[in-house]
Amino acid sequence: MAQEIERKFHVTSDDWRALADAGTRIRQFYLASREGLTVRVRRREGRPAVLTLKTGSGLSRGEFEYDIPDADADALEAAHLGTVIEKRRHLVPLGSLTIEVDVFAGPFAPLVTAEIELPAADHAVTLPSWIGREVTDDPRYGNGAMALAGAPPPA
Amino acid sequence: MAQEIERKFHVTSDDWRALADAGTRIRQFYLASREGLTVRVRRREGRPAVLTLKTGSGLSRGEFEYDIPDADADALEAAHLGTVIEKRRHLVPLGSLTIEVDVFAGPFAPLVTAEIELPAADHAVTLPSWIGREVTDDPRYGNGAMALAGAPPPA
Repeated sequence: MAQEIERKFHVTSDDWRALADAGTRIRQFYLASREGLTVRVRRREGRPAVLTLKTGSGLSRGEFEYDIPDADADALEAAHLGTVIEKRRHLVPLGSLTIEVDVFAGPFAPLVTAEIELPAADHAVTLPSWIGREVTDDPRYGNGAMALAGAPPPA
Repeated sequence: MAQEIERKFHVTSDDWRALADAGTRIRQFYLASREGLTVRVRRREGRPAVLTLKTGSGLSRGEFEYDIPDADADALEAAHLGTVIEKRRHLVPLGSLTIEVDVFAGPFAPLVTAEIELPAADHAVTLPSWIGREVTDDPRYGNGAMALAGAPPPA
């Protein structure tokens, strides 16, 4: 179990692309998505499938990750809720930290979000100019909520 | 992933006890319980904690089991739905098969159920006299449903 401290933001321009890697494709679906718990299966280009349970909500959540066989992930998809989420994740360095920029595809385009994992909840961070409004505490931007309810409001 | 073919019955007397082992204590809780999917964490005396996902319903279900650290199981219990289920499971041989007799504790007592895992859905089986009404297709006897809705009807 890891305690995850993450802040999430809208992305308001393409200026991050000059600093980013080529990105990896992610396909993920939710088996549960409710207040206090999501159960997600993620397929990421070049990696084993991962079953992830997240507890709690907001800035600080419990995260439990287990590698599972790809065949299990394939079979579990039949039980998914709502919409399967497809996106490309790019990594952008920010000093000693890394920003994950998610470019959503399909029904969620043109949404682009940025997440920063912090070593502590009160860790100070100077944000680049392409980072927009913070949505860490807005449950509509949780990918589990998006799978059920659709795209959140635009930037 | 295993395909599980199981029939479930009420137990109508204590005659099975002469044939049974001493049993093992089971404590389990549900993180999801809906039509087509349950997500369960089971702690069983002397074994590692197991995260189990079951898909489908009725006689034949998909079952996905992953050992997880005990500390993860402890932390995940905070997100459980409904009632934590405690029971003692006894094994009773039946020819080449094994009957699992579950004696429920707490709010589900005095419920006692028997499950038989079959090699095929049409596998013939001669049932002992202490086996009562079949409840395989009654969703109220699924332990995930019981965690949410309470004890099912008595035998």
